[in-house]
Amino acid sequence: MNDYGLRGVLERIDPPDEEVERSARRHLDRLTKPIGSLGFLEEIAAMYCRMTGTDAPKLGKKRIYTFAADHGVVDEGVTCYSKEVTRQMVLNMVAGGAGVNVLSKHTGVEAVVVDIGVDYDFPETPGLIGKKVRHGTDNMAKGPAMSEAEALRAVEVGIELAQCAYQDGVTLLGTGEMGIGNTTPSSALLAALLPCDVEEATGRGAGIGDAMLRHKIDVIGRALRVNRARLTDPLGALAAVGGLEIAGIVGLCIGGAAHRIPVVVDGFISTAGALVACKTCERVKEYLFFSHLSQERGHALLLERVGARPILDLGMRLGEGTGAALAMGIVEGAVKVYNQMATFEGAGVTGERRE
Amino acid sequence: MNDYGLRGVLERIDPPDEEVERSARRHLDRLTKPIGSLGFLEEIAAMYCRMTGTDAPKLGKKRIYTFAADHGVVDEGVTCYSKEVTRQMVLNMVAGGAGVNVLSKHTGVEAVVVDIGVDYDFPETPGLIGKKVRHGTDNMAKGPAMSEAEALRAVEVGIELAQCAYQDGVTLLGTGEMGIGNTTPSSALLAALLPCDVEEATGRGAGIGDAMLRHKIDVIGRALRVNRARLTDPLGALAAVGGLEIAGIVGLCIGGAAHRIPVVVDGFISTAGALVACKTCERVKEYLFFSHLSQERGHALLLERVGARPILDLGMRLGEGTGAALAMGIVEGAVKVYNQMATFEGAGVTGERRE
Repeated sequence: MNDYGLRGVLERIDPPDEEVERSARRHLDRLTKPIGSLGFLEEIAAMYCRMTGTDAPKLGKKRIYTFAADHGVVDEGVTCYSKEVTRQMVLNMVAGGAGVNVLSKHTGVEAVVVDIGVDYDFPETPGLIGKKVRHGTDNMAKGPAMSEAEALRAVEVGIELAQCAYQDGVTLLGTGEMGIGNTTPSSALLAALLPCDVEEATGRGAGIGDAMLRHKIDVIGRALRVNRARLTDPLGALAAVGGLEIAGIVGLCIGGAAHRIPVVVDGFISTAGALVACKTCERVKEYLFFSHLSQERGHALLLERVGARPILDLGMRLGEGTGAALAMGIVEGAVKVYNQMATFEGAGVTGERRE
Repeated sequence: MNDYGLRGVLERIDPPDEEVERSARRHLDRLTKPIGSLGFLEEIAAMYCRMTGTDAPKLGKKRIYTFAADHGVVDEGVTCYSKEVTRQMVLNMVAGGAGVNVLSKHTGVEAVVVDIGVDYDFPETPGLIGKKVRHGTDNMAKGPAMSEAEALRAVEVGIELAQCAYQDGVTLLGTGEMGIGNTTPSSALLAALLPCDVEEATGRGAGIGDAMLRHKIDVIGRALRVNRARLTDPLGALAAVGGLEIAGIVGLCIGGAAHRIPVVVDGFISTAGALVACKTCERVKEYLFFSHLSQERGHALLLERVGARPILDLGMRLGEGTGAALAMGIVEGAVKVYNQMATFEGAGVTGERRE
């Protein structure tokens, strides 16, 4: 694969390998444990085999891309943090002080920060990948957040980074994001694409109170009305009421699927990106793990509709890739179980008797 | 602390440090994230501080003790594995091929196997700690599984090992067990000590079918009737309808609490041990983490009654310490968040605005 164009990449997504999965499950049943007794860990291992197309999986390098961008809709007063915090947090991540840095270091994951649309011109900064499509989005309550061409370019940044990861030998990808105000476009995407009521899709983000929550719901409702004509397909919705970091995540999910690199989706905002990716091409879903159930309202509904089982449920709602980082440790543990546990035969252990 | 006597050790369990916990929570609120946005991870970090009595926690060495023992009640036909599997699995663990080995290696935990009551005389085996109290229990459906003196000795083995861990600088302990048939005494302990109906406390263990499950419930009912007079206190119940590995876990929980080493309790069987420990001394609970919600029937009820929130919910039911191993990785991640994340002030990040 030599280009990052969306249409070409979508055509290259293979169905997952079901014969490999069957073979993987037979192997799991030979390991020294009652059949199925490692529960979801066994599912994860079988899924990893199915995704990567081999029953001798090698899970080595792991990488999270944290996409950062700003949101014009912050002007409407939908968050209790100021916009400059996006840029400050990018610098905090580059310095290694954010939650995603600590948790990804803990689980042996490389954390990479991508400026895909921060409203600030960073000087050349080691450790920060500059892929800015534009300086943040426009205010979606008054018109489209960005053009479809810009949304597509941001998606293709994600595809390109999946391609880089493939070339670097990455075997497990994770998504992450940083963008003050970005639960607002995420909720708008849910409401537009699931579809569901705005109230069901909208939560407290970083922790807003009741009054601001009512206002946020109102703003999202306006954005959906103003952009109604643009919400007829996933990419149109992404451009109209989405965000640049969300678009990057869409591309990472699609690019991961095209390269058969499983992608661990972080929390609420990342799942909104995954939703756009799956609505664009259903097969993408087969290459995704869902890291955790966020405390953000709307996430449980979204996971349920996508038919996804989250790996963790720790009441987290930070984003950045923190949930992906922790869950990638669990996925790696599951693959190690598959690769390293002894078999009944090899260990001389007597298997289950017939009752 | 120089002796392993239960009574003396119980007296030395301090209340956890609430002032330290308050200080820890203040620190967590200064880290670069919305307040509370790391959810249960923040709780775990605050609990770890409270347990260890310092707001500058050091989580270094981690160790799981997997206690192995046999059960006379296997003669009643309550399991689909034969008794010799206990010994075979001990050897598999010593060789590094069991689930607990793989997962504890993955999370950087030392896995130690303890023969506290296997019905087999192992030759001197490197990596196997010999602490046999007796060659398995008697059939509890016909009388007490063991004497109270034996149960006490097994508890004191656990206390002694917690003391060893303390001397070795272990900062986080995990429980584990191996014993064919040991969901049967665990369910009996639940029914006796919660108390609850035998049906509510009894599940499929390694995977028995409906007929054997009905029989298992019947056997447990008989054991409780035969031993009724011995079930009036936790240690009496442990001796009458418990097991040697369960007693070891009781001691490890108590000894961990006495040394202020937090203990991560594995699954169903380990939680039965934790229940006996908490019924013996309520304060022990303050030093325990509960690793996961097992798929074994009775575990959800038990956790609820103990008032415990499990860290993971992965549908696991293997035991050995596999759940503890994975959850210890999460606990360590939580403490790293506490120690390694930047503060708002330190990173120059603007905090939350008043609404």
